[in-house]
Amino acid sequence: MQLGMIGLGRMGGNIVRRIVRDGHTAVGYERKSANIEELRAELGERFQGTTDLREFVAALETPRVVWVMIPAGATGAVIAEVAELLEPGDIVIDGGNSRYHDDIRRAEELKPKGIHYVDIGTSGGVFGLDRGFCLMIGGEPEPVAHLDPLLKSIAPGVDAAPRTPGRTGEPTPAEQGYLHCGPAGAGHFVKMVHNGIEYGAMAAYAEGLNILHKADYGLSHSGEFSAEETPLEHPEHYRYRIDVPEVTEVWRRGSVVASWLLDLTAAALHADPNLDSFGGRVSDSGEGRWTLDAAIDTGVPAPVLAAALFGRFSSRGESLYADKVLSAMRKAFGGHNELPRA
Amino acid sequence: MQLGMIGLGRMGGNIVRRIVRDGHTAVGYERKSANIEELRAELGERFQGTTDLREFVAALETPRVVWVMIPAGATGAVIAEVAELLEPGDIVIDGGNSRYHDDIRRAEELKPKGIHYVDIGTSGGVFGLDRGFCLMIGGEPEPVAHLDPLLKSIAPGVDAAPRTPGRTGEPTPAEQGYLHCGPAGAGHFVKMVHNGIEYGAMAAYAEGLNILHKADYGLSHSGEFSAEETPLEHPEHYRYRIDVPEVTEVWRRGSVVASWLLDLTAAALHADPNLDSFGGRVSDSGEGRWTLDAAIDTGVPAPVLAAALFGRFSSRGESLYADKVLSAMRKAFGGHNELPRA
Amino acid sequence: MQLGMIGLGRMGGNIVRRIVRDGHTAVGYERKSANIEELRAELGERFQGTTDLREFVAALETPRVVWVMIPAGATGAVIAEVAELLEPGDIVIDGGNSRYHDDIRRAEELKPKGIHYVDIGTSGGVFGLDRGFCLMIGGEPEPVAHLDPLLKSIAPGVDAAPRTPGRTGEPTPAEQGYLHCGPAGAGHFVKMVHNGIEYGAMAAYAEGLNILHKADYGLSHSGEFSAEETPLEHPEHYRYRIDVPEVTEVWRRGSVVASWLLDLTAAALHADPNLDSFGGRVSDSGEGRWTLDAAIDTGVPAPVLAAALFGRFSSRGESLYADKVLSAMRKAFGGHNELPRA
Amino acid sequence: MQLGMIGLGRMGGNIVRRIVRDGHTAVGYERKSANIEELRAELGERFQGTTDLREFVAALETPRVVWVMIPAGATGAVIAEVAELLEPGDIVIDGGNSRYHDDIRRAEELKPKGIHYVDIGTSGGVFGLDRGFCLMIGGEPEPVAHLDPLLKSIAPGVDAAPRTPGRTGEPTPAEQGYLHCGPAGAGHFVKMVHNGIEYGAMAAYAEGLNILHKADYGLSHSGEFSAEETPLEHPEHYRYRIDVPEVTEVWRRGSVVASWLLDLTAAALHADPNLDSFGGRVSDSGEGRWTLDAAIDTGVPAPVLAAALFGRFSSRGESLYADKVLSAMRKAFGGHNELPRA
Repeated sequence: MQLGMIGLGRMGGNIVRRIVRDGHTAVGYERKSANIEELRAELGERFQGTTDLREFVAALETPRVVWVMIPAGATGAVIAEVAELLEPGDIVIDGGNSRYHDDIRRAEELKPKGIHYVDIGTSGGVFGLDRGFCLMIGGEPEPVAHLDPLLKSIAPGVDAAPRTPGRTGEPTPAEQGYLHCGPAGAGHFVKMVHNGIEYGAMAAYAEGLNILHKADYGLSHSGEFSAEETPLEHPEHYRYRIDVPEVTEVWRRGSVVASWLLDLTAAALHADPNLDSFGGRVSDSGEGRWTLDAAIDTGVPAPVLAAALFGRFSSRGESLYADKVLSAMRKAFGGHNELPRA
Repeated sequence: MQLGMIGLGRMGGNIVRRIVRDGHTAVGYERKSANIEELRAELGERFQGTTDLREFVAALETPRVVWVMIPAGATGAVIAEVAELLEPGDIVIDGGNSRYHDDIRRAEELKPKGIHYVDIGTSGGVFGLDRGFCLMIGGEPEPVAHLDPLLKSIAPGVDAAPRTPGRTGEPTPAEQGYLHCGPAGAGHFVKMVHNGIEYGAMAAYAEGLNILHKADYGLSHSGEFSAEETPLEHPEHYRYRIDVPEVTEVWRRGSVVASWLLDLTAAALHADPNLDSFGGRVSDSGEGRWTLDAAIDTGVPAPVLAAALFGRFSSRGESLYADKVLSAMRKAFGGHNELPRA
Repeated sequence: MQLGMIGLGRMGGNIVRRIVRDGHTAVGYERKSANIEELRAELGERFQGTTDLREFVAALETPRVVWVMIPAGATGAVIAEVAELLEPGDIVIDGGNSRYHDDIRRAEELKPKGIHYVDIGTSGGVFGLDRGFCLMIGGEPEPVAHLDPLLKSIAPGVDAAPRTPGRTGEPTPAEQGYLHCGPAGAGHFVKMVHNGIEYGAMAAYAEGLNILHKADYGLSHSGEFSAEETPLEHPEHYRYRIDVPEVTEVWRRGSVVASWLLDLTAAALHADPNLDSFGGRVSDSGEGRWTLDAAIDTGVPAPVLAAALFGRFSSRGESLYADKVLSAMRKAFGGHNELPRA
Repeated sequence: MQLGMIGLGRMGGNIVRRIVRDGHTAVGYERKSANIEELRAELGERFQGTTDLREFVAALETPRVVWVMIPAGATGAVIAEVAELLEPGDIVIDGGNSRYHDDIRRAEELKPKGIHYVDIGTSGGVFGLDRGFCLMIGGEPEPVAHLDPLLKSIAPGVDAAPRTPGRTGEPTPAEQGYLHCGPAGAGHFVKMVHNGIEYGAMAAYAEGLNILHKADYGLSHSGEFSAEETPLEHPEHYRYRIDVPEVTEVWRRGSVVASWLLDLTAAALHADPNLDSFGGRVSDSGEGRWTLDAAIDTGVPAPVLAAALFGRFSSRGESLYADKVLSAMRKAFGGHNELPRA
């Protein structure tokens, strides 16, 4: 089968690599030729690339399959541009990190032209080339079914994890790592929640490791204290110098918190045991926010996911004004002066 | 009636002032003479002071009433020292910010000597001299009853707030601003929870004002964004330049969030509209932590109080290690580099 | 000055009462005549009412001032209807609980007709008639200035609170209880954040009182425990039977947490000490959600406000599915059975 | 090597099985004989068991290795009892879920007798027999080193997970699934934080799945609403019927949130897609609370772990009083009546 890919960066390029390696062919489009040439050199004839959008569309067999894999902010304009060149029955896929609201709208906009719109949330990051990508898919049943051979090649496959007890017979698509989640937007919706969970789980590890990191607190803080500091009632309880990198390693085998995120954390801590190469300003790329928005809209309590998101905001200094308000209040009612900066 | 006061700092001195002004007499003890001389000059003969603990005890009428008003860390030693000089029937009061666990223990220790132990949580801060102090009291009924004339003078009195609808007849002590909450430790327990609530309410204001402070976000952040930043979907919703000091002022009259904390906030923002005199490192003095400990012990959900406490920790940089862990994870699975420091 | 009021329920009726009592006149409109008749009987000639919208508009002096005070869901349609009957220079006020997004849109829609749109967030609840209403106002400067005499009558006035230290001279509008916060939507934006803070502060009290309520935990839970329950390490720390209604009363005078919300809580607990008349399903009316949405959009950490909102969701059973997931996980990895329902 | 095991329940029995299968011998003690007989039948001569503690001790080679694997509440008494029968140089292991405070104290108490105390936090649950147990160990270096052959047999071994990139040469103990974390208590300290993280990660999944579960909210809630309910601004965004069991399955392969907890969740949801066999009352067994206590003591922000813990408390109805307070406040200031029970 043939795939057209717009955007040949890390994600788009690796998806192309997976399908070509699995026997399919691909046509790539990008404004600049560097990635095109690299893929051509690597994949040979089963890949062709072009910097001309019309050429790209012309090179595709009908019904065309056009996967757009570019930053979310640019996706709308590119889809509109390519849709002008497509015909009824063609399929456009947004595989990036768009908000699912946009999918719902775009699917409606393309429907009168007979163009099918499919949204695919893609997880796997820089490891996707080898591990395969987990695919969460939204759209009408027919075009999604049409894509099945490609999806199977991109996804990790059933062997990527032990089979869930109780599941027998032919593996479902979910067991192979791709799932048709519902109509337009459902793929990005599920991917969005996936990332919301990711933020929460990451924060759970980070908070716990911070507690281990501070387990030597009683060695430096004895029972003395100023009026502005809370005394440590039992300094003898905090006299551990925990080797945090080794702890993350030991938890990888046999423990309840074993996970791929923990694997990565153990690797990162092995490479940089004190995390000196990081400053602690943590970005968020939207999905965590949108997950919270969805929780709020539907009345679902999500205190853990919210705390994780707000922790990222705070890491970037966004609590500063609020903290100043607190200091101002404390000074006003109690005459408390702030502690000096450490 | 006569009160013995150990510790003549801001809090102890103002309590002495209130009772002497109300017709009682006081004997003060402190190691240095400066505060003693100041109070003597101000209050005249109804106040005597000494830097000799034996003289202090000798000057008190029996049953002696000894109020200890010094930093929590020093209270235990001073109570032990003065208790050596006291007689059965005397009353020792811890009016500071001790943890109530210490009250339970100390009351047990003093019981064999026939000395009554009373713990009094005191709220009112630097305004207590004029407004009166809110008193939360723990101890046996008899000694607490014995203290009633003094407590009445220290507390704000019924006129400090409109009477609660439905309350008629002789005002209860609670309506006058002092309350016997239960046996030893109950006073500091209630004061502890009071401060826990205080942290939560303060944080509610601080977070809300921070949102107002950022209401101009859409003026500086249009719809563009990098892959590491979340776009603002509707910049037109965030084009307000809110005058935060004026907002705190308007809320003081007629709104649901009117409070004494808001009064103080409005004053602080009037004096320093941009809070330039504050750095945002917020201390905590123990009660917020102990309130959380109590919630955890008794299985009571306290997410708001916890968030308020943890916000203070974070304001002092204590999230840094956790934030670095998050950055390390993001780099590991997604190749994301951190945003540069602003 | 004259005010036209659409909606004569509790809020609209009380605003009419305040302005008429202060010397202004009012024209009221409502579909049914009951409230009209009641106000007429009470206020006499300075109030006229009608169930006919055209009559209502005709009775107003130009430039007309039309205050719409109806549930947020119906406001849009009514404003559209009345706007058809208005002329350039007239002023429409939305005094309800609309989302500020709607204000921004409506102001744009009415601008071509020359009709001024003003949004007023109103706080004060059932006590506003006597205490006055706190008014947060958005709109263009001229129409807002035109409304000044009415706003002054509706607001509580400067005497409603002690003057903030450092403020001298003629009181500002904020000191009288009303504030022009910015362009269209700014009034409802500030009111929204006000309610967000309200949720947070309410939850702070509620959590703290719950801890007091459980302070007798050690009397019923000694050190024994099952494998599914956490033992209480120090039952002797939780042997207090706290009189929660009296605690709320004592905090009203002299304490740092004194507030109007606390006044109301003390009254409610005096009337119903065990809160037997309540079931604990807590509604939220939108502002708390929208405050969170604004925090998320602008990257402001709001963990306390979020926890307060999510607590309300949970009170209505919305955590149930998540809790079942947790139970399923615990059973899966540890063989833990759920505790039976109490 | 030989191991003495006190407590032959699920955990103790499976540890015995693992070491005997790996070539060691074991002596078991339990008050009742059922488990002893079962293990004897299964393991043959390399296992002996007794219901007599003196016989148990007598059957052990010196230096004796006595692993106590019983509920935390009973551990202290049993260790005291067996210690009376031991000799200098013997080793007592607490492998249960004791609080690490107890380890610090017990190690001190046994030191004068020359008995070594080792605490081992054990993770692995019901799957430990096959997967191996993750072991977190506290104690003096010599006795821990002496135990090495046994620990190696109990732990999962290096093949249980892919080797962390950058780790070469002879695998460290951590890579084999056991780690000497520090002096007495360090094992249970690390296990405690492990469980705190577990609570947080579990809650992250549970909240996210709840959002997926409610993704059909717009199908039942259109834009209408009462004054006590928040309208859904965009019902068209919530029209998905997500197959939550299939989503957990698809995430197992290639996604960032793949984990052992997710594997278990997918299995649980496959077996009971609507979780009908669960009521949603979630226990906590202490470690989550103690993790929070440690965070509070050392000033580490742990909002995610706290939210997870408090969610469990709330699932058991412990928010009820607080929720009633909120309802009472809402009624007091706004005249709001509670929503009826669903």
